[in-house]
Amino acid sequence: MTRPVPPLALTMGEPAGVGPEIIAAAWKAHLSPFVVVGDARLMATHAPVEVVTDPASASAVFDRAIPVLDQPLSAPVTPGQPDPAHASAITGWIETAVRLCLDRAVAGMVTAPIAKAPLYQAGFRFPGHTEFIAELTADAPWGQTRGPVMMLTAKDLRACLVTIHTPLSQVPEMVTAERVSRVARVVHEALIRDFGIACPRLALAGLNPHAGEGGSIGLEEQEVLIPAATALRAEGLDISDPRPADTLFHDEARTTYDAVLCLYHDQALIPVKTLDFWGGVNVSLGLPVVRTSPDHGTGFDIAGRGIARPDSLIAALHLARTMADRRAAAV
Amino acid sequence: MTRPVPPLALTMGEPAGVGPEIIAAAWKAHLSPFVVVGDARLMATHAPVEVVTDPASASAVFDRAIPVLDQPLSAPVTPGQPDPAHASAITGWIETAVRLCLDRAVAGMVTAPIAKAPLYQAGFRFPGHTEFIAELTADAPWGQTRGPVMMLTAKDLRACLVTIHTPLSQVPEMVTAERVSRVARVVHEALIRDFGIACPRLALAGLNPHAGEGGSIGLEEQEVLIPAATALRAEGLDISDPRPADTLFHDEARTTYDAVLCLYHDQALIPVKTLDFWGGVNVSLGLPVVRTSPDHGTGFDIAGRGIARPDSLIAALHLARTMADRRAAAV
Repeated sequence: MTRPVPPLALTMGEPAGVGPEIIAAAWKAHLSPFVVVGDARLMATHAPVEVVTDPASASAVFDRAIPVLDQPLSAPVTPGQPDPAHASAITGWIETAVRLCLDRAVAGMVTAPIAKAPLYQAGFRFPGHTEFIAELTADAPWGQTRGPVMMLTAKDLRACLVTIHTPLSQVPEMVTAERVSRVARVVHEALIRDFGIACPRLALAGLNPHAGEGGSIGLEEQEVLIPAATALRAEGLDISDPRPADTLFHDEARTTYDAVLCLYHDQALIPVKTLDFWGGVNVSLGLPVVRTSPDHGTGFDIAGRGIARPDSLIAALHLARTMADRRAAAV
Repeated sequence: MTRPVPPLALTMGEPAGVGPEIIAAAWKAHLSPFVVVGDARLMATHAPVEVVTDPASASAVFDRAIPVLDQPLSAPVTPGQPDPAHASAITGWIETAVRLCLDRAVAGMVTAPIAKAPLYQAGFRFPGHTEFIAELTADAPWGQTRGPVMMLTAKDLRACLVTIHTPLSQVPEMVTAERVSRVARVVHEALIRDFGIACPRLALAGLNPHAGEGGSIGLEEQEVLIPAATALRAEGLDISDPRPADTLFHDEARTTYDAVLCLYHDQALIPVKTLDFWGGVNVSLGLPVVRTSPDHGTGFDIAGRGIARPDSLIAALHLARTMADRRAAAV
């Protein structure tokens, strides 16, 4: 007798955003089972719901209703109107999902979008989900290079970020050999462990036009990136010298690597969203828990109108399932 | 009786690069007539050639041979091996094409790629074609805002550059309201004059992630870009406030503007080359002459092997013809 496969946990995210409706749409797409961590009454306005107390019962429920681990909101919800009164519930859902992952009651977690402003008003102090989940898992054992590293996927593109929400003027000083090396190691290990790629090929993007053109358009490639790549290759990683960023993303170029290290937000997000605006997935690499999320925001402007597209959430659920299955098979 | 339509001038560019062979391939594609300004003997190694002394005779020749205004090289050519001895011929071809444009003997000019290093060794002092042609036309009358502004086209995308070959660390200080405004005016006028768009819609890209997210990720949007866009709208231009750069390039986004102003090289070149790696065209806006070029380099690594793709040169010839016809019709 095989043990039943644990479901994924799916946190409800900002209740006044598109989260509840795209979760309902994703459930209707007949995916592998997930259990929603959130407010059951709100969820029930979008789809049939059954409250469960143990994720293990989610699979039996999933064919007829969305299984919900109910952690109710304490204030009413108006679509499009975030309310700091919801903050403790929203962060509590994330904490519960992380705990379930660490307890192996769920196989991994997917997070619907949160809005940061109302959380900050209520005292939340993390830049986003990624850093919060890293903090919640900081004491959990992890035998490899610890992240988090943010990866965005779009179709066959996996773009990993060396800096994330950094003003462009601060990017050059933030791109250090230490940071590039840590990100490269996390990505290398994750591609093997979570993506099943035995010998990952990493491409490194340049910072400057034409990757500096031999030092004539900026020196960061010569002074930081080429030495970092050289040292990483000596460690055994398959990583390129910095390549001109504009030559990395067309169909043919994407066949030359398994993941690309991008040095700043728009260097990764422009190609990701140009190639697949609706289906991008955000993945946190190098953590003791599997975590993905849709690559879009709360959609306050369209929340409650039933027009939000679930493509990205569905892709995030698929990817989390695949990653979790790989980790489970490796145990 | 109507006057015959002048041909385009096509400068041969770096003779040891892919220029001669892609010119031959473009000629075989049966385009509207052009006259090559270059070395007739080298050109004849790739296709039938007839030397002409007046561009007016190019059209009669074009069906059976490539018409060439012969300005011979003084040293032999080895594919893949640039030679500073060719520099004066290469720059002379560009000077001739500009003069023919100003004399209205040709309708516009297309430039095959040049290599800068051998030209610099011979004393050339311009960053590239664009600035050289701007200098050669600086005294020619021009009733509108004077460029040059570099535009890259790919499919339906027109991306215009506020800074070009600037190290990334210097981009923030180079993005001034004055520079953004001048580029916006040049692009606005060019879209009307050369692209036949009566009321051009310009999108302005932000500099920082999420266009600064209201000032929380960098201040350039608040301090420079929003004031510049506001002032330009007061002048009558239809230009957006800075938009998050990663949301500007997918299919749906591209229908919301006629051209986008990008603040740095890779912000424009990444989407251009992701969308159309082989067919991109470089256009010089705001000059008294029509000038386009293929959006690729000399291809020394593949020169002489007959595998270089002429897509970009063909697209450049098509676009120059369309722009020149619009200018001619407006006279």
